[in-house]
Amino acid sequence: MSAPLVTFLTDFGLRDGYVAAMKGVLLARCPEARIVDVSHAILPGDVDAAAYVLRQVAGYFAAGTVHLAVVDPGVGSERRALVADTGSRRFVAPDNGLLTLVLDGAADLRMRAIENPALWREPVSPVFHGRDVFAPVGAFLAAGGDWTAVGPEIDPATIVRRPWPPPRSGRGVQQGVIVYVDGFGNMVSNLPVGPGGPGSGEVEVAGRRVPTGRTYSDVAPGDVVAVGGSAGLLEIARRGGNAAEHLGASVGAVITWRSRPEPARRAGPDL
Amino acid sequence: MSAPLVTFLTDFGLRDGYVAAMKGVLLARCPEARIVDVSHAILPGDVDAAAYVLRQVAGYFAAGTVHLAVVDPGVGSERRALVADTGSRRFVAPDNGLLTLVLDGAADLRMRAIENPALWREPVSPVFHGRDVFAPVGAFLAAGGDWTAVGPEIDPATIVRRPWPPPRSGRGVQQGVIVYVDGFGNMVSNLPVGPGGPGSGEVEVAGRRVPTGRTYSDVAPGDVVAVGGSAGLLEIARRGGNAAEHLGASVGAVITWRSRPEPARRAGPDL
Amino acid sequence: MSAPLVTFLTDFGLRDGYVAAMKGVLLARCPEARIVDVSHAILPGDVDAAAYVLRQVAGYFAAGTVHLAVVDPGVGSERRALVADTGSRRFVAPDNGLLTLVLDGAADLRMRAIENPALWREPVSPVFHGRDVFAPVGAFLAAGGDWTAVGPEIDPATIVRRPWPPPRSGRGVQQGVIVYVDGFGNMVSNLPVGPGGPGSGEVEVAGRRVPTGRTYSDVAPGDVVAVGGSAGLLEIARRGGNAAEHLGASVGAVITWRSRPEPARRAGPDL
Repeated sequence: MSAPLVTFLTDFGLRDGYVAAMKGVLLARCPEARIVDVSHAILPGDVDAAAYVLRQVAGYFAAGTVHLAVVDPGVGSERRALVADTGSRRFVAPDNGLLTLVLDGAADLRMRAIENPALWREPVSPVFHGRDVFAPVGAFLAAGGDWTAVGPEIDPATIVRRPWPPPRSGRGVQQGVIVYVDGFGNMVSNLPVGPGGPGSGEVEVAGRRVPTGRTYSDVAPGDVVAVGGSAGLLEIARRGGNAAEHLGASVGAVITWRSRPEPARRAGPDL
Repeated sequence: MSAPLVTFLTDFGLRDGYVAAMKGVLLARCPEARIVDVSHAILPGDVDAAAYVLRQVAGYFAAGTVHLAVVDPGVGSERRALVADTGSRRFVAPDNGLLTLVLDGAADLRMRAIENPALWREPVSPVFHGRDVFAPVGAFLAAGGDWTAVGPEIDPATIVRRPWPPPRSGRGVQQGVIVYVDGFGNMVSNLPVGPGGPGSGEVEVAGRRVPTGRTYSDVAPGDVVAVGGSAGLLEIARRGGNAAEHLGASVGAVITWRSRPEPARRAGPDL
Repeated sequence: MSAPLVTFLTDFGLRDGYVAAMKGVLLARCPEARIVDVSHAILPGDVDAAAYVLRQVAGYFAAGTVHLAVVDPGVGSERRALVADTGSRRFVAPDNGLLTLVLDGAADLRMRAIENPALWREPVSPVFHGRDVFAPVGAFLAAGGDWTAVGPEIDPATIVRRPWPPPRSGRGVQQGVIVYVDGFGNMVSNLPVGPGGPGSGEVEVAGRRVPTGRTYSDVAPGDVVAVGGSAGLLEIARRGGNAAEHLGASVGAVITWRSRPEPARRAGPDL
């Protein structure tokens, strides 16, 4: 059996020692764990961004991975803390919507509330459950502990969810919103794109018309293009630049995608 | 025996290859070491901030951990380089005050000066002892090398110290200073708070009066609160915001904490 | 045999999940791999900076290390993807000049084009070969896979190179350019300096004359000095400050280094 894998996602930043304290606690309790950082640069309290990043990443880790996600503006309040089990992986997070996207469509979902203080670090700081509650519980799970020990089973329907607005679609037209802007300034929408790419068409966003393309190099340097992004969603990018700054648009901006019907193929050769 | 744990704390940033070069050297000499980054985003040369972050973190790592800390504006000058052994863990650092807080109160402290070039990478760059001196010495210790080989024993009383000013206290009043501002803008003071929290009271800082609380959610969004921080110190935070920016205060600001005496309990029941 | 070592160098930043997705893919295919981050903070598309950082770091890792380097503004276009084998280590990167400096002078260099889709993650995103092509190929190599399987051998003379302009030298004078500015604002030139340091002399850069020194402390706080940097190149630094900002100079600035001849030693003692 290979070493248990634990991923960390927080808004704690990398300047202070918060993330390292969590890792110290986790490794003291589960020395064989291997830790992979997902991000610690989520804007403070930006649960929606954390939910997107977790969705973007979790599926690429091997089955059995434990995903710790601590973006927790309500730390120390009455908000619940959760363990979710999808059959192939587990998530440990506060109950504030952070798991919305990653659990969306999970078939075999079971959940428990974290309520067993015997697993925690004592005394628990009311302002740092990452170190004193989430890391110890993550260590317990990574070390193969029985997950029913973390606390009582809860109904997945009762957790806080922050879903994306559903896309609207008509004849050859889909309308959605920007749900995330990445570090390059690429604007990710909630409109799904298959592996074949967006095909030919046009996207309207922030009052601008943008052609679809397969990759950034399909347009000239400085031009804007709508591609099928790596998360399977339509994405607005600027070649060699920052699309969000260039367009002056951000999360929540409306995006309209008009597919252009492929021209009918004529029988016979071009003449 | 589990793999030796080595933590890294520097002001080298994560854009350049300095940290990775240190890791390459360490892993070439101690391939089984496991490295945990504490921070590489200490402001250049900010020894006091590094001392705080090291104190914030070290105790959470398992006994036997080797802590490398290289914030070293005097690199290549006559400043000494140190190994400190507290019985349960070792620190490798320049002699510039960086170890002040983490060694404060260490009962069983022994120290050596790093003076044995046989352990170093040759030639030693006069501007990068992190790679050529500290990482090789850390690897030697992590690999179980005899620590007396690093150099002569020295008297812990002779190392450079940069202690916090001691808090002053009177009847129900303590006065201290802000010693660190974290990435959220939370302002950490030198006033200790027990696990029970600060209780009821009031804090004065930067000409403002701030109530005490148990956690951020005890005040309304945007309001400022003084909580018992995760490092066991009184801390000024702004719910959902940046307290240091909001108050226009920083490291060195005076803070006065007035505990409110619990109301005397009357004998007998409320009527 | 110790665990295979894989280094990561990208311009993906640490805010989004791109790097973690690559790590998830790599560890799912080679669970025993140990990953070391070199940098993920290369400016978007800055192939020259990435080439410098890779050169600065690679040699410090043990033989057998696999170096993944993905700064790839031409992702999804017709640019080739490469594996380079230097006998002691392997590099996996797009064919855009990123490997120029690290392969410079490699004696026993062999290269292959990455063309075997059986090794990739399917479907390959046209905008994220890091996750779908480079990470799987890196995992294959780290796991001990036969490197001839990645694709056909190619002539190293055919890869894209972005070499530094060669220094010019005359009697006691060398002229070069700044090739990199690090996170401290230190300006690294293309002029080699031996382990003995630059000796006495003077450097002209951005219209300013700067003395040579052995380390930063050789000048007063705030003063500028030219030292032999840790990469073996002449480097302009400001003690306790940012030389590039102070001098208003950046990559491409001309630098002129005049060595001062050591004064002739007289026979006999000073009188």
